[in-house]
Parts: sequence; C-alpha cells; structure tokens
Amino acid sequence: MARIAIDAMGGDYAPKAIVEGALWAAQEYGVGLELVGREDEIKAELDRIKSAGYISSDCGTKGHKRKIAIDIDKIDYTITHASEVIGMGEAVGQSIRKKKDSSIVAAVRAVAEGRCEAVVSAGSTGAAMAASLFGLGRIHGVTRPAIAVTLPTMNKPIVLIDGGANSECTPEMLTQFAEMGNTYAKHIVEIDEPKVGILSIGEEEGKGNSLVKEAYPLLKADSEKGRINFVGNIEGKELFLNKCDVVVCDGFAGNIALKVTEATAAMMLKMISREFKSDIVGCIVGLLAKPFLRRILKRTNWEAFGGMLLLGVNGISVIAHGRSSSYAMKNAVRVAVRMLNKDINSMISENINR
Amino acid sequence: MARIAIDAMGGDYAPKAIVEGALWAAQEYGVGLELVGREDEIKAELDRIKSAGYISSDCGTKGHKRKIAIDIDKIDYTITHASEVIGMGEAVGQSIRKKKDSSIVAAVRAVAEGRCEAVVSAGSTGAAMAASLFGLGRIHGVTRPAIAVTLPTMNKPIVLIDGGANSECTPEMLTQFAEMGNTYAKHIVEIDEPKVGILSIGEEEGKGNSLVKEAYPLLKADSEKGRINFVGNIEGKELFLNKCDVVVCDGFAGNIALKVTEATAAMMLKMISREFKSDIVGCIVGLLAKPFLRRILKRTNWEAFGGMLLLGVNGISVIAHGRSSSYAMKNAVRVAVRMLNKDINSMISENINR
Repeated sequence: MARIAIDAMGGDYAPKAIVEGALWAAQEYGVGLELVGREDEIKAELDRIKSAGYISSDCGTKGHKRKIAIDIDKIDYTITHASEVIGMGEAVGQSIRKKKDSSIVAAVRAVAEGRCEAVVSAGSTGAAMAASLFGLGRIHGVTRPAIAVTLPTMNKPIVLIDGGANSECTPEMLTQFAEMGNTYAKHIVEIDEPKVGILSIGEEEGKGNSLVKEAYPLLKADSEKGRINFVGNIEGKELFLNKCDVVVCDGFAGNIALKVTEATAAMMLKMISREFKSDIVGCIVGLLAKPFLRRILKRTNWEAFGGMLLLGVNGISVIAHGRSSSYAMKNAVRVAVRMLNKDINSMISENINR
Repeated sequence: MARIAIDAMGGDYAPKAIVEGALWAAQEYGVGLELVGREDEIKAELDRIKSAGYISSDCGTKGHKRKIAIDIDKIDYTITHASEVIGMGEAVGQSIRKKKDSSIVAAVRAVAEGRCEAVVSAGSTGAAMAASLFGLGRIHGVTRPAIAVTLPTMNKPIVLIDGGANSECTPEMLTQFAEMGNTYAKHIVEIDEPKVGILSIGEEEGKGNSLVKEAYPLLKADSEKGRINFVGNIEGKELFLNKCDVVVCDGFAGNIALKVTEATAAMMLKMISREFKSDIVGCIVGLLAKPFLRRILKRTNWEAFGGMLLLGVNGISVIAHGRSSSYAMKNAVRVAVRMLNKDINSMISENINR
C-alpha cells in the first residue's frame, strides 16, 4: 500500500482540517498515512474523530457541508512526532536549516528515507518548496523546481507553471519550466502535443517585461528543436481561451494570476447571490438557480483542485492551499495519489537532459 | 465648450467604433470633438452615421445591443488629418519618433497646442503612453507616468496603479505611483484617507519579489511621513476584499491582474449561461435569472469603465481598451470629461513636490 507523508501542522486550519482531510483521502483512495507533527495534538484530533465516527467536509461550498463517516480502525496510519512548526511569516531558508524537527522538514524526510511515496503540505509555500528541495534534491539537470497548477476552462484544462515557487526568475529558468510543464501536460493532463505560451502583456513578440523579452527567443529556439511547441505570448485576458495548454511565467506573476482568478470567481458568485437577494422575485429565482450555480461553484472551486505539484524535485511533493479545509486537503492528497504510478520525474529528467 | 481630441485610428474596431463612440459621448456629455486620423476614412464614417441617423451601441452585453440616435449637426466637431497609424505590434519609442503624423501623436498635439482639454486613444497602450509623455511632458517631479484603473468590488471601488504603462519599475517609481494613486483615490474616487497596499505574494513584510521587498520600506517611510497611509502587502486573493483602496504594482503585474480579472469574469458568466442551457428546467430558470445576471454583467463589464487614466503627464490622457466598442469608447470619453474640472495634476504636483 502506498503511503503519503502529511505535514499535519501546516495550514491555517491545522491540525484539525489537515488530519481530517488526510483520513478522508486515505479512506477514499486506499492509501496509508504518516501524520507528521506534534504527537499530542494529532492524537487529540484522532481521538475526537474516532469517538465521533465522522468528520465534516467543511468544503466552503455554502450549503454543501456534509458529514463523512470515517472508520479510523480501517485506516493504515502512523504518527511521527515533530516538535516544531514553521509559521507563514518566517524567513524560509533560515527556518528550514534551523528547525530540523519542523513538521514539513520531517514529512519530507519520510519520503527521502523511503517510508512514504509522496509528501503533502498546506503550510508556507516557500517552506514546503525549500524543504522538498533540500530533502529530496533536484532532478538531474533541473535548475529550480516550479509549481505546476491545472486550471479549469470552458473546454480543456490548462497548466500554469510557475504558480509561486520562484518569485525571481531568469530566462533560462522559464525555458525549463516550459519543458517540465510540457511533460506534465502531456503525461498527466493527457494533452497531445501541448501548445506552450508565455504569460505577457501584449500579444506580439517584443512585448512584456525584460524577463519575457529575453525568454522569448530561448523558447522559440527550444520549439525549433522540437522540444516544445511554443506559440508565443499569451495575455491575461486570453488565459482561459485555450490558445495554449501550458502557460509559462515567473512565480510572482503566476501566483498573482492564480490568486486573482480565485478572487474574481469568488466575487462574481457573491455578486450573483446578492443580486438574487435584492427582491422577492430574485429570492425565488435564486432558489431555482441554486443547483445550477452550485455546479459552477464545484467546477471553479479551488478546494476541488486541492493541490499544486512541485515539479523538478526528486520525489512527489504537493503543496496545498494555506486555507485548506478538510475537503481541500483530501483533494490535495488525491493529486499526490494520481502521481504515484506515473513516474513523471523520469520523464522530466529524460526531457531536460536530452 | 470643452473639447476632446480623439485618436480615431486606434483600436481593433477603428475608425468605426471610435468615431461612433466619440459622437455618442459628445452628444451625451456636451463636449466638442477633434477627430484625428485619416480624413477620408473619418468622413466616410461620419457620412454613414449622418445618413443612418443612429449608431449601434455594440456594447458586448449579449442581447443588450441598441440603436442610439445621433444628430450629427448638433455636435461640435472638427477633423484633423493624420496620415499614419501606429499598429499594435510596432516598437513604441521608434514609431513615436518616426511617425510624427500618426493619429495618436497628432491627437496629443491637439492638447499640447491648447485646442483640446484631453486626449482619448484605444490604440497601443505603449504608443499612447509614449506620445502623451513626449507631447505633454511630465508633471514636475514625476519620474514616470502610470496608468490608474478603478475596479468595482462588492463595496467601494479600488484603484490599481500601474495598470500597464511601465513593464519595468524601480522601487522609487512604485512610491510615486502610490502617491499619485493616493491623490487620485482621494480627489477623484472620493475616498477619505485611502489605504495603500502593494500587490505581492504572501501577506507578510519580506514576501514577494525583489521589487516589492525593496519598495516596502520606502512605502513605510512615506507612510510615517504622513504622505500616504500604507497598509502593507495585498495578495491577489484579497484584491476585491477592500483591505486597501489603492493597490500599487509594476505595470506588468498590474496588467496581468487586470486582464485575468476580465478573463475570469467573462468565463464565469459563460459557464453560468452554459449551465442554464444544459436542460429544459435550466433554460426556464436561465430566462428568469437573465435580468439579475445582466445587472452583474453591467457592474463588472470593462466596457462600462471604458478608460484608464494616465497619471503623471501634464494634461489629461485616457487610454481605452484595444477592443473598444462604441459603448466602451463613449465611456472612455466620459472618464476624460470627469477629469475636466478636477485639476488632479496640480494636486499630484503639490503632493509629489512637498
């Protein structure tokens, strides 16, 4: 049975939502768990869940909260004590080196030492990235790992890379992100011949900031060599129009694009709900429209995607949303489970080093 | 009567949508026009509109297209011939210097020479910015002009600066953007004591790319001097939560945030419409929900905002969306008209130089 290492202390609602989501995932996907963090706190959560017999999905989808029966005795889990926690505000490099007994560092160690096949954390993105990088090492030939995120559109999903691992990038890094994203889109999202674009302002070559302008010819050269299929600049307004399948960007721009998408979708749904509440007719129409809107919510809810994959490290490392509920955490574990038999890292290595 | 210079050749649907929108605005807001561009093409549009007696709003809001009666004889307009056009893909600096008889350069000249009070262009943002900068000059003390955009939220609007004028910025430029945005939010958007935030990834000080990290202490110092009220980092996900009133960023990140907002809102509305069409009940509910959704569309439709103001130049320069319809163009002119009696530039100058 595959085993997933869980950073039980990472995330705004840790350890409660993390332990709950991990158990839910273990039950649903048939994997074992290594819960890493403060033993007493984890045990208290487990005891609570055991005596209740269920967890709450808490999935953020209003009116969608439901009880999930959990039979702890049927779940294969272990607890690994780690006394420290790396907070959201801490300087990443320092804290990873200093806090050797932090839950994220110890969870990565469970993979490095071969006890687990993947690690999932909803803690600080920077800390999860650094701990994975130091603990698992890079795939041979990769300069910097990057976060790959799959986003829904009206038609087929798109892959955005880097979603926030590297706030400062070189043009060469972007070409590697393109290659890793290409491999990921092909073999995991199962898109034949993915088209790769670079996120920019303005459609034409030569538009954008200096990073984009310098990366453009490198991506073009890569395309001419047949390593990727580069289609040029992609503007923010075209993000969901399937002009390309892989969107390459630095982690700062990528994270802003991701979070603004999330913020806009949430605001639109709130506006719609408020508009329906404006009069009695609206309330009735709103009630009738609810099942339809809920389907949209389900399709666009970040919690349903759960986790972002850190590509380029020698192992499977999934970074969950900091505000992860148990539902989001369950889905983050699902991202890890989906990767188990794919051997994406060998494919990335082969591609980067050819 | 105030007079607005119109770059009649700029934009994807120029000169048709531009001339139509300008006439509509002139009629609605009681301003005069100087239509700048290829005389024969402008005249052909005017003749067509004159004989039809109306224009089409073409406002992009599905089912919302309507005829607008236009009485050209009551509109005070002149035509200024300019033989050249600067295309979207052209290198900005070069084309501005070379194409002295381009519509955008000649339209700015109409303001510089005192015939018009403001200029509006839906052409290349870079060209409009460069032409305004060279033609009107900078406000004393301003290093680089920046684009200010007002965005709707659930509650009060927010101001984002820079929306795309400067794809490369220094920390010092961001502090000026903050001061200009602050003045704009106070006197134009009429927000008392605006709170200023910097767009970043991660909430805490020290998170973000090097530009944000270096600008942070400068903004803090500015805040301590009482020049602005700086509240720290704002994440993309918090953009519409009114945590601050002015969001400062470089033009690359700002343009991506803006365009992704636009793309997400459009996709959400498309998804909803498709969801309603999925079965017969949905079709009926969708019909009932239409007036409510149309109100959302109206509130979030970029065409209703029309234009972005270029702050920091010695004059009023409004940059309209490249895909401007006549409706968007009319609203872009409205942005210019709203600025006419405000003397925002003196206030910016006073603030920057104090």
